[in-house]
Amino acid sequence: MKNKAITSRNEDFAQWYTDVIRAAKLAAYSNVKGCIVIEPNGYAIWERMQQELDKMFKETGHQNLYMPVLIPENLMKKEGELINGFAPEVAWVTIGGQNELEERMCIRPTSETLFSDYYSNVVNSYRDLPKKYNQWCNVMRWEKETRPFLRSREFLWQEGHTIHETAKEAEEETRNMLGVYKKFFEEFLAIPVITGRKTEKEKFAGAEYTLTIEALMYNGVSLQSGTSHYFGQKFSKAYDITFSNRENQLEYVYQTSWGVTTRMIGALIMVHSDENGLILPPKIAPRQVAIIPIGTSDRVKDISNEILNKLSNAGIVAYVDNTERSPGFKFAEAEVNGIPIRIEIGERDLNENKITFARRDTYEKLVEPMDIDIVEYVKELMNKIQNNMFDKAKARLEELTYECHNLDEVKKIMNEKPGFVKAMWCGDPECELKMKEIKGTKSRCILEDAKPIDDKCIVCGKPAKDLVVWGIQY
Amino acid sequence: MKNKAITSRNEDFAQWYTDVIRAAKLAAYSNVKGCIVIEPNGYAIWERMQQELDKMFKETGHQNLYMPVLIPENLMKKEGELINGFAPEVAWVTIGGQNELEERMCIRPTSETLFSDYYSNVVNSYRDLPKKYNQWCNVMRWEKETRPFLRSREFLWQEGHTIHETAKEAEEETRNMLGVYKKFFEEFLAIPVITGRKTEKEKFAGAEYTLTIEALMYNGVSLQSGTSHYFGQKFSKAYDITFSNRENQLEYVYQTSWGVTTRMIGALIMVHSDENGLILPPKIAPRQVAIIPIGTSDRVKDISNEILNKLSNAGIVAYVDNTERSPGFKFAEAEVNGIPIRIEIGERDLNENKITFARRDTYEKLVEPMDIDIVEYVKELMNKIQNNMFDKAKARLEELTYECHNLDEVKKIMNEKPGFVKAMWCGDPECELKMKEIKGTKSRCILEDAKPIDDKCIVCGKPAKDLVVWGIQY
Repeated sequence: MKNKAITSRNEDFAQWYTDVIRAAKLAAYSNVKGCIVIEPNGYAIWERMQQELDKMFKETGHQNLYMPVLIPENLMKKEGELINGFAPEVAWVTIGGQNELEERMCIRPTSETLFSDYYSNVVNSYRDLPKKYNQWCNVMRWEKETRPFLRSREFLWQEGHTIHETAKEAEEETRNMLGVYKKFFEEFLAIPVITGRKTEKEKFAGAEYTLTIEALMYNGVSLQSGTSHYFGQKFSKAYDITFSNRENQLEYVYQTSWGVTTRMIGALIMVHSDENGLILPPKIAPRQVAIIPIGTSDRVKDISNEILNKLSNAGIVAYVDNTERSPGFKFAEAEVNGIPIRIEIGERDLNENKITFARRDTYEKLVEPMDIDIVEYVKELMNKIQNNMFDKAKARLEELTYECHNLDEVKKIMNEKPGFVKAMWCGDPECELKMKEIKGTKSRCILEDAKPIDDKCIVCGKPAKDLVVWGIQY
Repeated sequence: MKNKAITSRNEDFAQWYTDVIRAAKLAAYSNVKGCIVIEPNGYAIWERMQQELDKMFKETGHQNLYMPVLIPENLMKKEGELINGFAPEVAWVTIGGQNELEERMCIRPTSETLFSDYYSNVVNSYRDLPKKYNQWCNVMRWEKETRPFLRSREFLWQEGHTIHETAKEAEEETRNMLGVYKKFFEEFLAIPVITGRKTEKEKFAGAEYTLTIEALMYNGVSLQSGTSHYFGQKFSKAYDITFSNRENQLEYVYQTSWGVTTRMIGALIMVHSDENGLILPPKIAPRQVAIIPIGTSDRVKDISNEILNKLSNAGIVAYVDNTERSPGFKFAEAEVNGIPIRIEIGERDLNENKITFARRDTYEKLVEPMDIDIVEYVKELMNKIQNNMFDKAKARLEELTYECHNLDEVKKIMNEKPGFVKAMWCGDPECELKMKEIKGTKSRCILEDAKPIDDKCIVCGKPAKDLVVWGIQY
């Protein structure tokens, strides 16, 4: 039964990951170093993600727009922390047309600078606020080590950028958008996340603070999956973005930004997939049902098409695999592509007035009478699959979440069966550096309003300030 | 009645164009030279275009994917004509991270090279063909003179790329996609186009031939609005893209590409808009109906919301303008934004059981009884507006299309009231160059299977080969 094109997940997780991507044709390596081709099957997942997120962004009052891909160096430099954070990893355009540029420009690694430059055009008074923008685009960060979807020089993302009249409103926005991400991960991707605040060391360059959602991959490695930043007035002071407030005085705006990327596709794979390839949650799967005719009789064909029509009319994305290959081959292909439900239509079943459903998540085969309400049945089955996938991921997250009280415990866990480690921290970046010596363990986030599990820092033993989740990261 | 923020179209067309863009908040200049910010109102039009085109591409069997934004110089150089065509106008990345790159890379001006590089991964046999791909992305061409939407260094577009088993099939694809563009322009944008083949001089670098749709702006200037290229085996030979054919022999694939850009927004403006700003065809307008309450009584509010709900439930995009500004101000704003239909809800009308509809295209006011089926009424009115806009544009196109038999006629037309000039041509590029001396008149396209209107070339008097449409271009 085991798909031979895919390395076992427990044997070599990294190889398994690349095998799943290749087998499902999600991405291909390109001759552009550090960049991938997102192939149709991978891009279709991204489109589904975009559709759902875009709807959520618009429902919360955001508007899409588009900023230039290039940022002149001077504009980039205005906010000191940002350029310090990003300068080492940008790509610089130095020649345009035939000529050396007077001022070099970088390909956007993120667009706070351009948005900040733009805001002055659109804001004069508190009446013009808030402005809530989002853009879907490509960005580039000159990474040294790359992995498909998880880390590549170019990636696709959305970046939300907003400005507000008050700190309170901007902080609410920061938190609300983190909530949107959490909801999207849990409801659509079936991936449970923990949320919290990044430490000073790990926050976004230029932010007052960064909120994050963190997911845990099947192998216990953590993945920063979405971040939401509160900038206060840092950028508005650097870029001189003012408005006349209700007291008719000039004030600097309060700013946020937030983003998620094609990295989410990597998360989907690493959380849910198995020895036989991709498994997609029905709510995000670009194709939800594979209908596979067994044999070529007219009856088999007609019923396959009839079911296709019924499902399509109900808004379920199904397809009939009419290619000239064996049913076994078609089953394996639907499997490797992660199609949540397979419907098998064969003469033998039909003679007994039956059809067979197969669940991708559990491999369970369900033989049902022909006269069931197939739309309702498939809808229910998709719900079950969606919930089961979430529950399974949640159980894994819980299984791999530990409370630790000393570094030996952390060492043991990170060496044997890594995951999220909860431990107290004094707030000193030195202690974060010490923790990193244990297999690169980093703070994932500070849990806000969490009950302390100890009174001293797990590293230095001094009085603890925060309960922090730690993990090995991608 | 005339909007004072907008220069008269007949006085200064160029200024009128920028005024319309600024007044409708479609785009803003940015501090990145030659690049614009596509603002929410402009981007929403692009999203509508994407939705409709994407549906049409998928219905014709195309799949979306995503290629890297950078192209290494060596890869770019493999097809000689392409690099010669594009080298003068690309932006080069020479530094990545902190280091000078060993090989510089350009920001894609178009992606034939990357697709060609990719095809070898996915094609072995004729059974793997055709492959029909599309990508939505940004591209960059280092233009010297730029104008919002019409010509800017960075623009957004879609680029379709396909490979086929036979020349015949690839040529059919080239023609079919031109047909999709024509349909989209005429049915959705309400812009009539002429179609034909580019001359050798005007075709895409590296193509066997280029088909084009050409639109005529209100001022008689022509706009190349979408192109579809047949490459034959030019790229497949340069990039070594082979497949084993039905005779089990290695053969080079046959290739096409085709694209339309954010320039279409410029065309929409220049064809339809008027002295009071933008006019959008209902089928592409992001907001189709503006409901404007006059006064603040509960009845006015309730009925406004009731109408909003009815229209929304029927899939019509409407909004109620509840801001605290005068009705006159709201009318002007809806007008300047090109909203096709305005519904006015006021106490006086309501007392007489009436509501008022205003058409953006004709300014006509229609007072109707309250009890009409408002959904049906609005749908019909939108159809009328859509058709009227097309008919008007078509009439203008016909008015400004001339048949010429000597250069004096062409001169007179291009000086007095320019448009499309139909004239016979011998096929010699020298004659094209001569024509260019008349106010920059260029060949737009060769009309295929057209009835000759003369037997000699309008320029040199030698025997004519083709009927060509000529025009001054953006």
